[in-house]
Amino acid sequence: MATHSDTRIKVGIVGGTGYTGVELLRLLSQHPQVELVAITSRKEDGVPVSDMYPNLRGHVDLKFSTPENANLEQCDVVFFATPHGVAMSQVERLLEAGVRVIDLAADFRLQDTDVFQKWYKMEHSCPDILSQSAYGLPELLRDKIAQAKVIGNPGCYPTTVLLGLAPLLEGGKALVDTQHLIADCKSGVSGAGKGASVPNLFAEASDNFKAYGVSGHRHHPEIVEQLQRLAGGPVGLTFVPHLVPMIRGMFSTIYARIKPEAMDTDFQALYEQRYAQETFVDVLPAGTLPETRSVRASNQLRISVQRPGNGDQLIILVVQDNLVKGASGQAVQNMNILFGLPEQTGLKHVAILP
Amino acid sequence: MATHSDTRIKVGIVGGTGYTGVELLRLLSQHPQVELVAITSRKEDGVPVSDMYPNLRGHVDLKFSTPENANLEQCDVVFFATPHGVAMSQVERLLEAGVRVIDLAADFRLQDTDVFQKWYKMEHSCPDILSQSAYGLPELLRDKIAQAKVIGNPGCYPTTVLLGLAPLLEGGKALVDTQHLIADCKSGVSGAGKGASVPNLFAEASDNFKAYGVSGHRHHPEIVEQLQRLAGGPVGLTFVPHLVPMIRGMFSTIYARIKPEAMDTDFQALYEQRYAQETFVDVLPAGTLPETRSVRASNQLRISVQRPGNGDQLIILVVQDNLVKGASGQAVQNMNILFGLPEQTGLKHVAILP
Amino acid sequence: MATHSDTRIKVGIVGGTGYTGVELLRLLSQHPQVELVAITSRKEDGVPVSDMYPNLRGHVDLKFSTPENANLEQCDVVFFATPHGVAMSQVERLLEAGVRVIDLAADFRLQDTDVFQKWYKMEHSCPDILSQSAYGLPELLRDKIAQAKVIGNPGCYPTTVLLGLAPLLEGGKALVDTQHLIADCKSGVSGAGKGASVPNLFAEASDNFKAYGVSGHRHHPEIVEQLQRLAGGPVGLTFVPHLVPMIRGMFSTIYARIKPEAMDTDFQALYEQRYAQETFVDVLPAGTLPETRSVRASNQLRISVQRPGNGDQLIILVVQDNLVKGASGQAVQNMNILFGLPEQTGLKHVAILP
Amino acid sequence: MATHSDTRIKVGIVGGTGYTGVELLRLLSQHPQVELVAITSRKEDGVPVSDMYPNLRGHVDLKFSTPENANLEQCDVVFFATPHGVAMSQVERLLEAGVRVIDLAADFRLQDTDVFQKWYKMEHSCPDILSQSAYGLPELLRDKIAQAKVIGNPGCYPTTVLLGLAPLLEGGKALVDTQHLIADCKSGVSGAGKGASVPNLFAEASDNFKAYGVSGHRHHPEIVEQLQRLAGGPVGLTFVPHLVPMIRGMFSTIYARIKPEAMDTDFQALYEQRYAQETFVDVLPAGTLPETRSVRASNQLRISVQRPGNGDQLIILVVQDNLVKGASGQAVQNMNILFGLPEQTGLKHVAILP
Repeated sequence: MATHSDTRIKVGIVGGTGYTGVELLRLLSQHPQVELVAITSRKEDGVPVSDMYPNLRGHVDLKFSTPENANLEQCDVVFFATPHGVAMSQVERLLEAGVRVIDLAADFRLQDTDVFQKWYKMEHSCPDILSQSAYGLPELLRDKIAQAKVIGNPGCYPTTVLLGLAPLLEGGKALVDTQHLIADCKSGVSGAGKGASVPNLFAEASDNFKAYGVSGHRHHPEIVEQLQRLAGGPVGLTFVPHLVPMIRGMFSTIYARIKPEAMDTDFQALYEQRYAQETFVDVLPAGTLPETRSVRASNQLRISVQRPGNGDQLIILVVQDNLVKGASGQAVQNMNILFGLPEQTGLKHVAILP
Repeated sequence: MATHSDTRIKVGIVGGTGYTGVELLRLLSQHPQVELVAITSRKEDGVPVSDMYPNLRGHVDLKFSTPENANLEQCDVVFFATPHGVAMSQVERLLEAGVRVIDLAADFRLQDTDVFQKWYKMEHSCPDILSQSAYGLPELLRDKIAQAKVIGNPGCYPTTVLLGLAPLLEGGKALVDTQHLIADCKSGVSGAGKGASVPNLFAEASDNFKAYGVSGHRHHPEIVEQLQRLAGGPVGLTFVPHLVPMIRGMFSTIYARIKPEAMDTDFQALYEQRYAQETFVDVLPAGTLPETRSVRASNQLRISVQRPGNGDQLIILVVQDNLVKGASGQAVQNMNILFGLPEQTGLKHVAILP
Repeated sequence: MATHSDTRIKVGIVGGTGYTGVELLRLLSQHPQVELVAITSRKEDGVPVSDMYPNLRGHVDLKFSTPENANLEQCDVVFFATPHGVAMSQVERLLEAGVRVIDLAADFRLQDTDVFQKWYKMEHSCPDILSQSAYGLPELLRDKIAQAKVIGNPGCYPTTVLLGLAPLLEGGKALVDTQHLIADCKSGVSGAGKGASVPNLFAEASDNFKAYGVSGHRHHPEIVEQLQRLAGGPVGLTFVPHLVPMIRGMFSTIYARIKPEAMDTDFQALYEQRYAQETFVDVLPAGTLPETRSVRASNQLRISVQRPGNGDQLIILVVQDNLVKGASGQAVQNMNILFGLPEQTGLKHVAILP
Repeated sequence: MATHSDTRIKVGIVGGTGYTGVELLRLLSQHPQVELVAITSRKEDGVPVSDMYPNLRGHVDLKFSTPENANLEQCDVVFFATPHGVAMSQVERLLEAGVRVIDLAADFRLQDTDVFQKWYKMEHSCPDILSQSAYGLPELLRDKIAQAKVIGNPGCYPTTVLLGLAPLLEGGKALVDTQHLIADCKSGVSGAGKGASVPNLFAEASDNFKAYGVSGHRHHPEIVEQLQRLAGGPVGLTFVPHLVPMIRGMFSTIYARIKPEAMDTDFQALYEQRYAQETFVDVLPAGTLPETRSVRASNQLRISVQRPGNGDQLIILVVQDNLVKGASGQAVQNMNILFGLPEQTGLKHVAILP
């Protein structure tokens, strides 16, 4: 934490033992306008956070506490870095206390509660609050976020695919065939979280590459709902996620077929103009290709627009750090918007390379 | 080498210091019908092979020799594990001596010499020999290979994409839109060879994922030439190779749109039947997804056929070890065919997992 | 499996779902004198082995069965790839049926049952059988193994440290200070087994290096017991294991201080002579350093003898594949000895490099 | 760069294309009191730094320039991130212009110029300047650094071994046998730099572990010179460096035998007291073990003191990020001291975990 004042935002974190939790702690502990006041974990009650995460030694003095003792109502904002379903069970109480809520799980991502129930196997417990919440993708929904009391922080895959496709679909443009979009996505293993699991063991995931969830993945309906909102109509998307033997990083290769009437479009210019004012979206120069390490541990997302042989196949390449712009960094960006701070406050870290 | 007899095939290797070279040595030294008689490297003349490759200590006693001293004309077959252009400069002399040639580089992959010249920046020096050579993909061209004196061993990417698409295109079938095929391919770093290069350093390639060659890659025209032969007409392919932080392994995710008149096809059955007799092509049970480690260090290639939601988008997933089925193993398979041996001779290794 | 005959050894495996189990299957399925007749897993009863381990598709047709249905008494030998304590509970019944037993866990490694109880938190249930069992390190105890009915297959660390130190200690030689030996050992992550655990997740263990078990590790008393047997007296050993972000491989750096009266010893010659007849122990030429990949997926162990500046500090560097020579390969080597086969039968695989 | 003023330190970097160069840029571009004015590379003259290092896009606008055009004399301080021998050839001119110099290579590490010549194969060109330079290890030589005009930034291995052993040797204490110290050190691959080289290729270094430089390494005499200064007499050190398949990180396992008269020492307390005031040296609680990722991309160094069984063998475990505390971070720390800034200015980054 940097220089303090009474105006600092009081922040609580519920369920901070996973990867999005420790990443929130890393970012918030270096945020100049934040005061970390509580972090909860029923299981680790009383344990110093830095015992579990030795990188925080000397930076974060907090101990985990139970939700009961954490007194989250005193906070200005509470982040939920919990399993799906937790935030929606606690949000009403916090809203009544005037606390804003940013959920890093899926409770406030999908407006269609039937779809939510189908994919997350639970009924939505507060559809009224959901309908007033904002989908927390600032580059698409900044104004709505600024007014919201509850933010559903987007999934990692959706962040790349939505920012990768938005310029082609926004405002009902007829630039590409929106019925046959393809997103071939690759994620580092930290995206699977910190739970003990055989498939994510080093000896299983290292020196290996595989696809998963081809027949269905929870981020698919989330992407489609937002794409349809952007396009103002139905959208067809094939989504294939893959697992890469790296810790952090996400790379999405998106294929869209250009419509005959849009063949003269300057797509490079389209993307550059769309994101010219966005600090965290970097459209690479024509001919340049991205790599995940160029954004490692930073909140940057980089996009490259490719059109081989000037043909009818457009390829959009997008990289981000799945734990930062794909999760905790974006959550902090949303917090900055909620509290009227410059969006890049506390998020100016240079990516780690090599 | 296992039990010997006078009937063993005398084998020479030109340029055996790279990864396809050492992999040939690993496979051939355990092949029961092979006698390794010479391996050349001008630079390493006189050095025991096992000094460069300590895994061969106790298995291969050969020393590198100059091409002049190697007396390659005494061999039954010579493998070229050399840069592009070397094999075509030496093949005539060897053919005259009755030696068969298997080139692991690109000299005999492309029948169109203009395309060869465009992509490899050199004129083809023996188009007559080229026109009588065989493209060494046994599952597609076994009979031709058996009759050939010169084999152009396929590139690693082409092996996966061609075996992945062949059942859909062979015999001019109209099952998918052949004008808009997409191959999103991912390769381990050994595919780049053993040359010293900054981008392939551990500190550059590890914990990273990137695309490369999006605007053009040498394997693109090779794949297209063979696809067109299979389809009996023009084919359009978008090909995006990516680099995965793993040593061995290749994963190709292939997208093809099913034609309206083919929507009733049972694609799983189509693939199972097509490859039922193929030892080295394993069509996975419906619903199963492949991973590269399932073929690590083996000559196996595995294919999964996916059709999410029974829609019009077909997804073919293919894995192989780029150094085995994608290079040296396939070369040995071709040798077995050339000399009338059972195709799996010396190639029955179980993949290394974990 | 290769060519068969009635003389093949009938093999059963108890608990074959872990890494030593699948490695046994890989090796035994390619062993020319073995018939795999049963593999047990209560949890996976009825599941084809190749469903769990796709690398075995086409190589192993067995299904897992319950111990009850496996009819292990029909086997010639049974391998236990189980948690500590399982083998000793079943060995009596098998011995009565004339079956030989090779335990890859710790039940028959330590002759001192008090030490066993202290480190493994269970009483030894068959000390009589234990006292007649052999410690299965062939290069040290080949004759005893050949006569035994029960083999305690050594731990992975002990194999490297014992073979690394044996030439210095055997026969009560006074070459080094045996009270202050140091073994600084580094293991790949597969050594921790296939159990789901947070510390062994890819996102935890990758791009990281750490020590563990510094205050006490189960392999410590095992090494010391054998060193004392070799030295004929008390031995002092400092043992520090570390975890390396690689799947397979073990590297032990062993420090021994040369006694004043032994300063003229030619240690390189000592090691070369000691292991001259050993197929699986390779003493590297003077000045050469080992690396783990030179033995990846092979039963080879390589040793380098270093004495910087010809001083009084001897450094012994040892590499092996922890799953092969450090576990399953050694178990097969022991089986070969038990049944009078040449020791290298089925174990001649060339290491995988790169 | 953060808030500016006329008091910012004008910084130049010579040879900024390697890993220590880009790491300096990462740290200095986020340093609140620094103005980057020039970075030289003859080969990359005119190229934007962010073209070579895409992580710097949006953070560093500088282009590489030739040394001639860089006008380094205008700087307050110049960092040399160059090969050995470059700094000593340019330092005189810079000192005359009042510029302070921090060399990240070896030119000002060794006071003994004969030793320098032996290990670096070149004569020292400015022994007078050398004799007035300071060895840049702040925790040992802070006062001298503050007065110096030229700093020799320590090697990565020496930083860990010296800080690991200092409390045992300083002031001629007789706590351990200083004639038989052992440092078993493990480094990530970035320590080898960014030069193209076969042994450091991903396909060579990944999934592998090896020792190197056992018969002699340049950091050995550097460590010994400083240890002898600390101990006030001759010191004997065995030093074995190893290569770990990770990008960043260094782990040193140091063995020292406790002297009989020092057996009652509380070593944990000794270390805690010695480093109580040091921001960047963290002595871990008793019983805790370090791991390299706990310092990844930070300037922290962590030490654990272990004494198994309360015996006579002391084990000191030290971790750092070789590119930060082991190189560029320490250089910035030295700069802060030179210019009277709080030592942690611009160096408070939390380590990246996972």
